[in-house]
Amino acid sequence: MEEISVSSISFMRDSFSIRGRELRKLLQRAGLDAWVVAEPANWYYLTGFTGEAGMLVVSEGESALVTDGRFTSQAREECHGLRVVEQKGALGEAVGKYLQSKRLKRIGYDPGRMSVEQLGRLRKGAGKNKEWKGRKGLVEGLRMVKEPGELAQMRKAAALADAVLSGVLKLLKPGVRELEIAAEIEYQMRRKGANGAAFESIVAFGERSALPHAGPTERKLRKNELVVLDLGAILGHYCSDITRTVYLGRAPGRIRGWYQAVLEAQEAAIGAIGAGVECGKVDEAARKVLAGHGLEERFIHSTGHGLGLEVHEEPRLARGQRSRLAAGNVVTVEPGVYVPGVGGIRIEDDVAVHEGGIEVLTRSKREFTEI
Amino acid sequence: MEEISVSSISFMRDSFSIRGRELRKLLQRAGLDAWVVAEPANWYYLTGFTGEAGMLVVSEGESALVTDGRFTSQAREECHGLRVVEQKGALGEAVGKYLQSKRLKRIGYDPGRMSVEQLGRLRKGAGKNKEWKGRKGLVEGLRMVKEPGELAQMRKAAALADAVLSGVLKLLKPGVRELEIAAEIEYQMRRKGANGAAFESIVAFGERSALPHAGPTERKLRKNELVVLDLGAILGHYCSDITRTVYLGRAPGRIRGWYQAVLEAQEAAIGAIGAGVECGKVDEAARKVLAGHGLEERFIHSTGHGLGLEVHEEPRLARGQRSRLAAGNVVTVEPGVYVPGVGGIRIEDDVAVHEGGIEVLTRSKREFTEI
Repeated sequence: MEEISVSSISFMRDSFSIRGRELRKLLQRAGLDAWVVAEPANWYYLTGFTGEAGMLVVSEGESALVTDGRFTSQAREECHGLRVVEQKGALGEAVGKYLQSKRLKRIGYDPGRMSVEQLGRLRKGAGKNKEWKGRKGLVEGLRMVKEPGELAQMRKAAALADAVLSGVLKLLKPGVRELEIAAEIEYQMRRKGANGAAFESIVAFGERSALPHAGPTERKLRKNELVVLDLGAILGHYCSDITRTVYLGRAPGRIRGWYQAVLEAQEAAIGAIGAGVECGKVDEAARKVLAGHGLEERFIHSTGHGLGLEVHEEPRLARGQRSRLAAGNVVTVEPGVYVPGVGGIRIEDDVAVHEGGIEVLTRSKREFTEI
Repeated sequence: MEEISVSSISFMRDSFSIRGRELRKLLQRAGLDAWVVAEPANWYYLTGFTGEAGMLVVSEGESALVTDGRFTSQAREECHGLRVVEQKGALGEAVGKYLQSKRLKRIGYDPGRMSVEQLGRLRKGAGKNKEWKGRKGLVEGLRMVKEPGELAQMRKAAALADAVLSGVLKLLKPGVRELEIAAEIEYQMRRKGANGAAFESIVAFGERSALPHAGPTERKLRKNELVVLDLGAILGHYCSDITRTVYLGRAPGRIRGWYQAVLEAQEAAIGAIGAGVECGKVDEAARKVLAGHGLEERFIHSTGHGLGLEVHEEPRLARGQRSRLAAGNVVTVEPGVYVPGVGGIRIEDDVAVHEGGIEVLTRSKREFTEI
């Protein structure tokens, strides 16, 4: 990670205050006096606070972070224009009391981001005469449209993933273990400046590649096997996510055929992406190509997902999704085929949607590769 | 990670079925027909399923995992005596339908482990005539008491953390960056067989060590500075967690004094641990020592937490905790003092409670170390 210069800090400060203003507009429109944020990605997006515990309350008057003693100094150091309230006792009740003290009445929260227990404690702490309104995706809706600074960061995160992938492909040879490759992936990410892996890297050899989400094991690579590598880095808070499938040895025709089908499906899906396009149509484009190859039943997940501060965000490129892509969205495109007992093939890239076109952020070679 | 032999696999299978039986006894006592598990640590504990998505329903008749196409093969491969139901559509609704089809009526869930949205979807999918009962910590209560096989695994995870710590201390010299050390920590864990880090390693130099949970940055180490290293590995699913504080150079008397106070506080807390002891008393023992040194206000978090499949578990060694320690519990003991602008000192070890005594699992040297 580059050292942050004074100008980029003030750029970021501006972003946080713009995002707060946008959220306040949404609250006003929804008739809400306050919004309670219960998890890290959304509070980072709104304030820059990188701690792991607390709750953020955004209201017309102020933004207040309620957190415990481990994080108060950190919050004051990291955030500007944020009131930091140190909790004594349980978090939910402390936030409830804050809401009470500010006489905030109509309070919104995201039911997908709040546990039943947290909501119960908030209600208890805030007392009577409050209205609690569950609203999905208010902050996520803002996050879906990346600002130029966020896109710039995501380009760097994607380039880092490309570089790590290219280095790790060179280590594939008979006898190497899945866990060794996974260790190298994460080490190379860190060496190249990443804050860490965006998710547990998938390194799957041979028949294990038929499990789309298998964790790496002691399994050794053998000649004439498929290798699926699915990895992503967090760089300056933003995630990348790339998958490549290669073959150790000369691949049989059946494997080549599957690979070409997946590649065509991915190209069709990427070709379908654009501002204004329904998300479900992108998924459909991939699925149609695989159906043409008789592989529809082998594609057992959706085509892609939004990417940003979290590795799985809105929008989802899945069957029947009616929401429409917009400029500033960044999505993965990752069709695959999986044949239990034999192996799997997945090809994944990260794509940004622009006003007049698209931009593929990850740039690793996609052609079938035999090692 | 060692390769799992056939005998250890059958040992683990026995564990899963014993745990299922124990949970069924608790359900019967609580008058519940079924228990819904919505997160990975608890479903792994009960079934051995290592996937990231799904819900597990445990009832008198069977245990059923509802999950999507990415995880069905994996679940069938990993688990015995588990019914795997592939969901079509939203998870919560699919689980609700399963509950409906089995005519399960009184359904328990953990309100701290279930989002407001998930519960809403479950209720919708299951239809009317159901009773939903929130109960905290049913599975966590079982997990708190480690079996001999779990303790053996935790000893190994602790030894691995000790080994990584000892290697990394050798890398501390002027000019090294926090992020470099963090990268080495995670790489060395992997090289030594860990599945990964149990949490983002804390590497804090100089005044940054006063932030108990600061993530590593580009900050370079200088002569005459404190270094806090807080790291833990996941090995065969179980976590370790250790912290050491060292000084680069000759430490001034004030720093030595703080260190001795923290060490005494830790020893007092460890000395207070035993089967039957109230958790709050252990916290009190540490706090009392620090108060004797006039440092009570500098100890801004609780004394420790349970450790196991997750890095933060029950029981909590915190002020006023009335629950009592029992044989099989594993807890961290980690008092600290933090002086904003100057630095912080924390010493943390993992301690297992036995019938007739205690066992400190981490064994790194605790005496004040100048490098």
